[in-house]
Amino acid sequence: MAQLSPKDRMVTAALMLFQRKGYAAASWRKLVEAADAPWGSAHHYFPGGKEQLSVAAIELGGRGIAALIEHSFREAGSAADGVRRLFAASAAQMVRSKFQSGCPITTVALETVPSSSAITAACRAAFALWEETLANGLRRSGVEEDRVSNLAMTILATFEGAPVTSRVSQSVEPLRVSAETVARLLA
Amino acid sequence: MAQLSPKDRMVTAALMLFQRKGYAAASWRKLVEAADAPWGSAHHYFPGGKEQLSVAAIELGGRGIAALIEHSFREAGSAADGVRRLFAASAAQMVRSKFQSGCPITTVALETVPSSSAITAACRAAFALWEETLANGLRRSGVEEDRVSNLAMTILATFEGAPVTSRVSQSVEPLRVSAETVARLLA
Repeated sequence: MAQLSPKDRMVTAALMLFQRKGYAAASWRKLVEAADAPWGSAHHYFPGGKEQLSVAAIELGGRGIAALIEHSFREAGSAADGVRRLFAASAAQMVRSKFQSGCPITTVALETVPSSSAITAACRAAFALWEETLANGLRRSGVEEDRVSNLAMTILATFEGAPVTSRVSQSVEPLRVSAETVARLLA
Repeated sequence: MAQLSPKDRMVTAALMLFQRKGYAAASWRKLVEAADAPWGSAHHYFPGGKEQLSVAAIELGGRGIAALIEHSFREAGSAADGVRRLFAASAAQMVRSKFQSGCPITTVALETVPSSSAITAACRAAFALWEETLANGLRRSGVEEDRVSNLAMTILATFEGAPVTSRVSQSVEPLRVSAETVARLLA
């Protein structure tokens, strides 16, 4: 992260901490230390403190996953293949982190929605972006318009849940099997 | 909770706090106060402190959801109907809590797996029980044996994820639509 500005280091470090242990475990002190940012600049960039930093981290994570969805479907030969690629990318990330790191948003959302309205709005916008990106990927792959919306919603739900069961079982099987089952809906 | 023993009040209160804000936000002080338990008895019943209490809460939540799965399929006329009933029960609970309370295990799992081995084991046992209960429900409803295992794994993943997207969007639509889509796999 050395090339990033102190502000971007704060956001990236927050995202990484949230993926591992969630929101409450990431104190402001831990967030500043993980970013290797001077205390003064942390408050300067994020006068709204942890909540403001969290919104920025969720926005960054939201854009990252949206790009992954977009890429998975663009590279794929079919909607089914797009789902397989998307879930395989999640499985690869799970293995790389030794099953210690998950979705950038789920944990924070479950800890803070709806008590923080700013974080709730950021989580909602990220999920809406993912669902829209999934819907566009399905459409471009030739899925009939009247099935697109319900399929995108279901794929998003499964894409949120399979990493949870994978992480708990310390196995990529739930991600692999869920992708295959969903792919059959699309074939 | 007045009829419960102090020990059971501790476990039930922990479960309710975990469903709303997760593990890290629930300090020992909050857990004891929410249970209205005397400090001395809290330490007496749970000498292993918060981790031991959490394991008991996850076991209680695990049995509760397993019973819900079992009940949903027993009352249903088909596997598809069993899935609909299960997801509808989750949606009803979501509405009752005004979208403030979710799965008894997901949030804690995402905060603590794999750093606490006791909690990881409890979460893993709960998910394995749910998957087995789902598989038995599918079997009894006449689903072919060679499809049972993959379908149970996928339904569990979707049943974990749909409440997340429902809670964030403050709408039962993701639960309703996911159930309908999964039901089609089974029809």
